[in-house]
Amino acid sequence: MRFSPLIEQLMDAFRVLPGVGPKTAQRMAMHLLERERAGGERLASVIQKAIDEVGYCQRCRTLTEADICAICETPRRDDALLCVVESPADQLAIEEAGGFQGRYFVLHGHLSPLDGIGPDAIGVDQLEARVAEGHIEEIVLATNPTVEGEATAHYIAAQLARYGVRFSRLAYGVPMGGELEYVDGGTLSRAFSGRQPFSSD
Amino acid sequence: MRFSPLIEQLMDAFRVLPGVGPKTAQRMAMHLLERERAGGERLASVIQKAIDEVGYCQRCRTLTEADICAICETPRRDDALLCVVESPADQLAIEEAGGFQGRYFVLHGHLSPLDGIGPDAIGVDQLEARVAEGHIEEIVLATNPTVEGEATAHYIAAQLARYGVRFSRLAYGVPMGGELEYVDGGTLSRAFSGRQPFSSD
Repeated sequence: MRFSPLIEQLMDAFRVLPGVGPKTAQRMAMHLLERERAGGERLASVIQKAIDEVGYCQRCRTLTEADICAICETPRRDDALLCVVESPADQLAIEEAGGFQGRYFVLHGHLSPLDGIGPDAIGVDQLEARVAEGHIEEIVLATNPTVEGEATAHYIAAQLARYGVRFSRLAYGVPMGGELEYVDGGTLSRAFSGRQPFSSD
Repeated sequence: MRFSPLIEQLMDAFRVLPGVGPKTAQRMAMHLLERERAGGERLASVIQKAIDEVGYCQRCRTLTEADICAICETPRRDDALLCVVESPADQLAIEEAGGFQGRYFVLHGHLSPLDGIGPDAIGVDQLEARVAEGHIEEIVLATNPTVEGEATAHYIAAQLARYGVRFSRLAYGVPMGGELEYVDGGTLSRAFSGRQPFSSD
Protein backbone atom coordinates (compact mmCIF):
# COMPACT_ATOMS: atom_id res chain seq x y z
CA MET A 1 0.00 0.00 0.00
CA ARG A 2 0.99 3.56 -0.63
CA PHE A 3 -1.01 6.61 0.34
CA SER A 4 -3.70 7.78 -2.08
CA PRO A 5 -2.43 9.41 -5.32
CA LEU A 6 -3.01 13.00 -4.20
CA ILE A 7 -1.21 12.44 -0.88
CA GLU A 8 1.69 10.83 -2.77
CA GLN A 9 1.79 13.91 -5.04
CA LEU A 10 1.90 16.15 -1.97
CA MET A 11 4.78 14.17 -0.44
CA ASP A 12 6.56 14.33 -3.77
CA ALA A 13 6.08 18.10 -4.07
CA PHE A 14 7.70 18.68 -0.65
CA ARG A 15 10.88 17.06 -1.98
CA VAL A 16 11.61 20.31 -3.85
CA LEU A 17 12.58 21.88 -0.50
CA PRO A 18 16.25 21.66 0.49
CA GLY A 19 17.10 18.87 2.93
CA VAL A 20 13.71 17.18 2.61
CA GLY A 21 13.91 13.42 1.93
CA PRO A 22 11.07 10.90 1.64
CA LYS A 23 10.56 10.44 5.40
CA THR A 24 10.47 14.17 6.14
CA ALA A 25 8.17 14.78 3.17
CA GLN A 26 5.79 12.17 4.57
CA ARG A 27 5.86 13.78 8.01
CA MET A 28 5.18 17.20 6.49
CA ALA A 29 2.25 15.93 4.39
CA MET A 30 0.69 14.08 7.36
CA HIS A 31 1.21 17.06 9.67
CA LEU A 32 -0.49 19.48 7.27
CA LEU A 33 -3.42 17.18 6.52
CA GLU A 34 -3.95 15.93 10.07
CA ARG A 35 -3.27 19.00 12.15
CA GLU A 36 -2.49 22.17 10.19
CA ARG A 37 -4.87 22.68 7.31
CA ALA A 38 -5.21 26.40 8.05
CA GLY A 39 -1.43 26.82 8.18
CA GLY A 40 -1.16 24.79 5.00
CA GLU A 41 -3.60 27.05 3.16
CA ARG A 42 -1.61 30.03 4.29
CA LEU A 43 1.67 28.40 3.21
CA ALA A 44 0.27 27.60 -0.26
CA SER A 45 -1.01 31.11 -0.80
CA VAL A 46 2.14 32.84 0.49
CA ILE A 47 4.40 30.64 -1.69
CA GLN A 48 2.29 31.52 -4.73
CA LYS A 49 2.23 35.23 -3.87
CA ALA A 50 5.98 35.35 -3.21
CA ILE A 51 6.77 33.57 -6.49
CA ASP A 52 4.48 35.97 -8.37
CA GLU A 53 5.66 39.17 -6.72
CA VAL A 54 9.23 38.80 -5.46
CA GLY A 55 11.74 39.97 -8.04
CA TYR A 56 15.06 41.75 -7.89
CA CYS A 57 15.86 45.23 -6.59
CA GLN A 58 16.56 47.37 -9.67
CA ARG A 59 19.57 48.87 -7.96
CA CYS A 60 21.31 46.11 -5.98
CA ARG A 61 19.58 42.97 -7.35
CA THR A 62 18.65 41.57 -3.95
CA LEU A 63 15.34 39.70 -3.67
CA THR A 64 12.43 42.02 -2.93
CA GLU A 65 8.82 42.61 -3.98
CA ALA A 66 9.53 46.38 -4.22
CA ASP A 67 11.19 48.07 -7.21
CA ILE A 68 13.95 49.34 -4.95
CA CYS A 69 14.82 47.51 -1.70
CA ALA A 70 14.83 49.17 1.72
CA ILE A 71 18.64 49.34 1.96
CA CYS A 72 19.00 51.03 -1.44
CA GLU A 73 16.11 53.39 -0.61
CA THR A 74 17.28 54.72 2.75
CA PRO A 75 19.41 57.90 2.78
CA ARG A 76 21.06 56.68 6.00
CA ARG A 77 23.73 54.57 4.32
CA ASP A 78 27.20 55.39 3.05
CA ASP A 79 27.16 55.68 -0.76
CA ALA A 80 30.96 55.56 -0.90
CA LEU A 81 31.10 51.96 0.32
CA LEU A 82 29.74 49.02 -1.68
CA CYS A 83 29.70 45.38 -0.58
CA VAL A 84 29.45 42.74 -3.31
CA VAL A 85 27.94 39.41 -2.18
CA GLU A 86 26.97 36.19 -3.90
CA SER A 87 23.48 35.84 -2.42
CA PRO A 88 20.74 37.60 -0.42
CA ALA A 89 21.46 35.14 2.42
CA ASP A 90 25.11 36.36 2.53
CA GLN A 91 23.83 39.93 2.61
CA LEU A 92 21.56 39.09 5.54
CA ALA A 93 24.43 37.43 7.42
CA ILE A 94 26.55 40.59 7.05
CA GLU A 95 23.66 42.81 8.13
CA GLU A 96 23.03 40.64 11.17
CA ALA A 97 26.71 40.77 12.12
CA GLY A 98 26.28 44.56 12.19
CA GLY A 99 28.89 47.21 11.59
CA PHE A 100 28.70 47.61 7.81
CA GLN A 101 26.94 50.84 6.87
CA GLY A 102 27.44 50.95 3.10
CA ARG A 103 25.33 49.65 0.20
CA TYR A 104 25.19 46.21 -1.41
CA PHE A 105 25.28 44.54 -4.78
CA VAL A 106 24.06 40.93 -5.12
CA LEU A 107 25.57 38.72 -7.83
CA HIS A 108 23.19 35.74 -7.39
CA GLY A 109 26.01 33.27 -7.85
CA HIS A 110 29.61 33.30 -8.96
CA LEU A 111 31.39 32.93 -12.28
CA SER A 112 31.25 29.33 -13.41
CA PRO A 113 32.11 28.97 -17.09
CA LEU A 114 31.45 25.23 -17.07
CA ASP A 115 27.85 25.88 -15.98
CA GLY A 116 27.49 28.71 -18.49
CA ILE A 117 27.45 31.37 -15.75
CA GLY A 118 29.38 34.31 -17.16
CA PRO A 119 29.68 38.01 -16.28
CA ASP A 120 26.20 38.77 -17.69
CA ALA A 121 24.48 36.32 -15.37
CA ILE A 122 26.06 37.84 -12.26
CA GLY A 123 25.28 41.42 -13.36
CA VAL A 124 28.80 42.76 -13.89
CA ASP A 125 27.52 45.33 -16.44
CA GLN A 126 25.02 46.66 -13.93
CA LEU A 127 27.71 46.79 -11.25
CA GLU A 128 29.99 48.69 -13.62
CA ALA A 129 27.23 51.21 -14.41
CA ARG A 130 26.81 51.77 -10.70
CA VAL A 131 30.55 52.36 -10.18
CA ALA A 132 30.54 54.72 -13.17
CA GLU A 133 28.11 56.98 -11.28
CA GLY A 134 31.19 58.08 -9.35
CA HIS A 135 30.06 57.94 -5.70
CA ILE A 136 31.79 54.70 -4.76
CA GLU A 137 35.25 54.86 -3.16
CA GLU A 138 35.66 51.31 -1.89
CA ILE A 139 34.23 47.98 -2.99
CA VAL A 140 34.31 45.12 -0.46
CA LEU A 141 34.40 41.94 -2.52
CA ALA A 142 32.60 39.66 -0.04
CA THR A 143 32.24 36.67 -2.35
CA ASN A 144 32.68 33.28 -0.68
CA PRO A 145 36.17 32.12 0.37
CA THR A 146 36.06 29.37 -2.28
CA VAL A 147 37.91 28.92 -5.55
CA GLU A 148 34.90 30.23 -7.49
CA GLY A 149 34.36 33.13 -5.10
CA GLU A 150 38.04 34.12 -5.37
CA ALA A 151 37.96 33.94 -9.17
CA THR A 152 34.82 36.07 -9.26
CA ALA A 153 36.41 38.68 -6.97
CA HIS A 154 39.52 38.80 -9.17
CA TYR A 155 37.44 39.15 -12.33
CA ILE A 156 35.39 42.02 -10.91
CA ALA A 157 38.45 43.86 -9.58
CA ALA A 158 40.17 43.56 -12.98
CA GLN A 159 37.05 44.64 -14.85
CA LEU A 160 36.51 47.76 -12.74
CA ALA A 161 40.16 48.68 -12.20
CA ARG A 162 40.00 51.71 -14.48
CA TYR A 163 37.48 53.52 -12.23
CA GLY A 164 40.10 54.08 -9.56
CA VAL A 165 38.05 52.69 -6.65
CA ARG A 166 39.73 50.77 -3.83
CA PHE A 167 38.99 47.06 -3.59
CA SER A 168 39.07 45.02 -0.42
CA ARG A 169 38.32 41.45 0.55
CA LEU A 170 37.16 40.03 3.90
CA ALA A 171 40.05 38.97 6.14
CA TYR A 172 40.90 35.26 6.19
CA GLY A 173 41.72 33.70 9.51
CA VAL A 174 40.65 31.39 12.30
CA PRO A 175 36.95 31.77 13.21
CA MET A 176 36.11 33.38 16.57
CA GLY A 177 35.37 30.81 19.25
CA GLY A 178 36.80 27.99 17.16
CA GLU A 179 39.50 25.64 18.37
CA LEU A 180 42.75 25.60 16.39
CA GLU A 181 42.78 21.82 16.53
CA TYR A 182 39.71 21.73 14.28
CA VAL A 183 40.67 24.51 11.85
CA ASP A 184 41.68 23.24 8.39
CA GLY A 185 45.25 23.66 7.18
CA GLY A 186 44.47 26.17 4.42
CA THR A 187 42.74 28.52 6.83
CA LEU A 188 45.48 28.12 9.42
CA SER A 189 48.29 28.95 6.98
CA ARG A 190 46.32 32.00 5.76
CA ALA A 191 45.87 33.08 9.39
CA PHE A 192 49.64 32.77 9.88
CA SER A 193 50.57 34.80 6.83
CA GLY A 194 48.01 37.43 7.81
CA ARG A 195 49.08 37.59 11.47
CA GLN A 196 48.64 40.95 13.22
CA PRO A 197 50.88 42.85 15.67
CA PHE A 198 49.73 42.23 19.22
CA SER A 199 50.58 43.81 22.54
CA SER A 200 49.35 43.07 26.02
CA ASP A 201 48.18 46.63 26.75
CA MET B 1 17.87 44.68 8.11
CA ARG B 2 15.47 41.88 7.55
CA PHE B 3 14.29 40.56 4.23
CA SER B 4 11.41 42.36 2.53
CA PRO B 5 7.95 41.88 4.15
CA LEU B 6 6.74 39.27 1.66
CA ILE B 7 9.91 37.18 2.02
CA GLU B 8 9.58 37.39 5.81
CA GLN B 9 5.98 36.19 5.47
CA LEU B 10 7.16 33.28 3.35
CA MET B 11 9.81 32.29 5.91
CA ASP B 12 7.19 32.58 8.62
CA ALA B 13 4.71 30.40 6.72
CA PHE B 14 7.28 27.59 6.38
CA ARG B 15 7.44 27.40 10.19
CA VAL B 16 4.11 25.57 10.12
CA LEU B 17 5.97 22.48 8.88
CA PRO B 18 7.24 20.05 11.53
CA GLY B 19 10.91 20.42 12.45
CA VAL B 20 11.34 23.72 10.57
CA GLY B 21 13.01 26.46 12.63
CA PRO B 22 13.98 29.98 11.55
CA LYS B 23 17.24 28.98 9.81
CA THR B 24 15.65 26.13 7.84
CA ALA B 25 12.69 28.35 6.91
CA GLN B 26 15.11 30.94 5.56
CA ARG B 27 16.96 28.32 3.52
CA MET B 28 13.69 27.01 2.11
CA ALA B 29 12.47 30.50 1.14
CA MET B 30 15.79 31.41 -0.51
CA HIS B 31 15.97 28.08 -2.31
CA LEU B 32 12.48 28.43 -3.77
CA LEU B 33 12.93 32.05 -4.83
CA GLU B 34 16.47 31.70 -6.14
CA ARG B 35 16.42 28.29 -7.75
CA GLU B 36 13.08 26.51 -7.70
CA ARG B 37 10.23 28.78 -8.69
CA ALA B 38 8.64 26.10 -10.88
CA GLY B 39 8.84 23.54 -8.06
CA GLY B 40 7.46 26.17 -5.68
CA GLU B 41 4.43 26.83 -7.88
CA ARG B 42 3.79 23.11 -8.01
CA LEU B 43 4.17 22.78 -4.23
CA ALA B 44 1.71 25.64 -3.62
CA SER B 45 -0.90 24.22 -5.95
CA VAL B 46 -0.58 20.64 -4.67
CA ILE B 47 -0.85 21.77 -1.04
CA GLN B 48 -4.00 23.71 -1.89
CA LYS B 49 -5.48 20.83 -3.88
CA ALA B 50 -4.69 18.27 -1.15
CA ILE B 51 -6.22 20.46 1.55
CA ASP B 52 -9.34 20.95 -0.56
CA GLU B 53 -9.78 17.35 -1.64
CA VAL B 54 -8.24 14.99 0.90
CA GLY B 55 -10.77 13.87 3.46
CA TYR B 56 -11.41 10.65 5.36
CA CYS B 57 -12.34 7.24 4.01
CA GLN B 58 -16.01 6.72 4.91
CA ARG B 59 -15.27 3.19 6.02
CA CYS B 60 -11.87 3.21 7.80
CA ARG B 61 -11.29 6.97 8.30
CA THR B 62 -7.82 6.97 6.76
CA LEU B 63 -6.79 10.05 4.76
CA THR B 64 -7.81 9.80 1.09
CA GLU B 65 -9.33 11.94 -1.64
CA ALA B 66 -11.66 9.06 -2.55
CA ASP B 67 -14.91 8.28 -0.73
CA ILE B 68 -13.63 4.79 0.05
CA CYS B 69 -9.87 4.11 0.22
CA ALA B 70 -8.09 1.46 -1.85
CA ILE B 71 -7.68 -0.97 1.08
CA CYS B 72 -11.38 -0.83 2.01
CA GLU B 73 -12.37 -1.15 -1.66
CA THR B 74 -10.36 -4.24 -2.63
CA PRO B 75 -12.03 -7.64 -2.25
CA ARG B 76 -8.57 -9.22 -1.68
CA ARG B 77 -8.44 -8.55 2.06
CA ASP B 78 -9.64 -10.57 5.02
CA ASP B 79 -12.88 -9.04 6.41
CA ALA B 80 -12.57 -11.10 9.58
CA LEU B 81 -9.44 -9.24 10.75
CA LEU B 82 -9.43 -5.55 11.68
CA CYS B 83 -6.39 -3.54 12.76
CA VAL B 84 -7.05 -0.37 14.76
CA VAL B 85 -4.31 2.29 14.50
CA GLU B 86 -3.86 5.83 15.77
CA SER B 87 -2.78 7.42 12.48
CA PRO B 88 -2.47 6.90 8.71
CA ALA B 89 1.34 6.92 9.19
CA ASP B 90 1.02 3.94 11.58
CA GLN B 91 -1.15 2.19 9.01
CA LEU B 92 1.50 2.77 6.33
CA ALA B 93 4.26 1.43 8.61
CA ILE B 94 2.27 -1.79 9.14
CA GLU B 95 1.56 -2.12 5.42
CA GLU B 96 5.22 -1.63 4.60
CA ALA B 97 6.24 -4.24 7.16
CA GLY B 98 4.01 -6.63 5.18
CA GLY B 99 2.19 -9.70 6.41
CA PHE B 100 -1.09 -8.19 7.60
CA GLN B 101 -3.92 -8.98 5.19
CA GLY B 102 -6.94 -7.66 7.07
CA ARG B 103 -8.69 -4.28 7.07
CA TYR B 104 -7.96 -1.12 9.08
CA PHE B 105 -9.65 1.46 11.21
CA VAL B 106 -7.91 4.79 11.89
CA LEU B 107 -8.63 6.63 15.14
CA HIS B 108 -6.73 9.84 14.31
CA GLY B 109 -5.37 10.12 17.82
CA HIS B 110 -5.96 8.52 21.19
CA LEU B 111 -8.24 9.21 24.13
CA SER B 112 -7.01 12.26 25.99
CA PRO B 113 -9.68 13.63 28.33
CA LEU B 114 -7.52 16.59 29.39
CA ASP B 115 -7.37 17.74 25.74
CA GLY B 116 -11.07 17.10 25.26
CA ILE B 117 -10.47 14.09 23.01
CA GLY B 118 -13.18 11.58 23.90
CA PRO B 119 -14.62 8.47 22.21
CA ASP B 120 -16.51 10.59 19.63
CA ALA B 121 -13.34 12.24 18.33
CA ILE B 122 -11.64 8.92 17.71
CA GLY B 123 -14.70 7.40 16.01
CA VAL B 124 -15.59 4.66 18.50
CA ASP B 125 -19.27 4.77 17.40
CA GLN B 126 -18.27 4.19 13.80
CA LEU B 127 -15.94 1.37 14.86
CA GLU B 128 -18.78 -0.20 16.85
CA ALA B 129 -21.14 0.02 13.85
CA ARG B 130 -18.53 -1.77 11.81
CA VAL B 131 -18.14 -4.56 14.37
CA ALA B 132 -21.94 -4.85 14.57
CA GLU B 133 -21.98 -5.83 10.88
CA GLY B 134 -20.83 -9.23 12.14
CA HIS B 135 -17.91 -10.09 9.80
CA ILE B 136 -15.08 -9.29 12.19
CA GLU B 137 -13.60 -12.10 14.28
CA GLU B 138 -10.42 -10.46 15.61
CA ILE B 139 -9.47 -6.85 16.30
CA VAL B 140 -5.73 -6.08 16.57
CA LEU B 141 -5.49 -3.02 18.81
CA ALA B 142 -2.31 -1.52 17.32
CA THR B 143 -2.43 1.77 19.22
CA ASN B 144 0.95 3.10 20.32
CA PRO B 145 2.78 1.42 23.24
CA THR B 146 2.28 4.53 25.38
CA VAL B 147 0.10 5.23 28.39
CA GLU B 148 -2.52 6.93 26.17
CA GLY B 149 -2.35 4.19 23.54
CA GLU B 150 -2.83 1.51 26.22
CA ALA B 151 -5.76 3.36 27.77
CA THR B 152 -7.37 3.75 24.34
CA ALA B 153 -6.93 0.03 23.61
CA HIS B 154 -8.50 -0.87 26.98
CA TYR B 155 -11.43 1.47 26.40
CA ILE B 156 -12.17 0.06 22.94
CA ALA B 157 -11.90 -3.55 24.13
CA ALA B 158 -14.30 -2.84 27.02
CA GLN B 159 -16.73 -0.95 24.79
CA LEU B 160 -16.92 -3.70 22.18
CA ALA B 161 -16.71 -6.70 24.54
CA ARG B 162 -20.36 -7.68 24.04
CA TYR B 163 -19.87 -8.45 20.33
CA GLY B 164 -17.81 -11.52 21.15
CA VAL B 165 -14.86 -10.70 18.90
CA ARG B 166 -11.30 -11.60 19.93
CA PHE B 167 -8.98 -8.71 20.80
CA SER B 168 -5.23 -8.76 20.44
CA ARG B 169 -2.40 -6.31 20.95
CA LEU B 170 1.03 -6.15 19.26
CA ALA B 171 3.71 -8.08 21.18
CA TYR B 172 6.00 -6.07 23.40
CA GLY B 173 9.67 -6.93 23.40
CA VAL B 174 13.15 -5.94 22.39
CA PRO B 175 13.34 -4.49 18.86
CA MET B 176 15.02 -6.61 16.16
CA GLY B 177 18.63 -5.60 15.58
CA GLY B 178 18.72 -3.57 18.79
CA GLU B 179 21.31 -4.04 21.51
CA LEU B 180 20.06 -5.02 24.95
CA GLU B 181 22.39 -2.48 26.54
CA TYR B 182 20.36 0.33 24.97
CA VAL B 183 16.87 -1.06 25.53
CA ASP B 184 14.92 0.77 28.25
CA GLY B 185 14.00 -1.05 31.46
CA GLY B 186 10.24 -1.08 30.85
CA THR B 187 10.66 -2.77 27.48
CA LEU B 188 13.21 -5.22 28.87
CA SER B 189 11.01 -6.32 31.75
CA ARG B 190 8.05 -6.73 29.34
CA ALA B 191 10.29 -8.82 27.08
CA PHE B 192 11.19 -11.02 30.09
CA SER B 193 7.63 -11.59 31.20
CA GLY B 194 6.65 -12.36 27.59
CA ARG B 195 9.58 -14.72 26.95
CA GLN B 196 8.99 -17.56 24.47
CA PRO B 197 10.04 -21.23 24.50
CA PHE B 198 13.15 -21.71 22.40
CA SER B 199 14.94 -24.75 21.08
CA SER B 200 18.05 -25.08 18.99
CA ASP B 201 16.42 -27.18 16.27
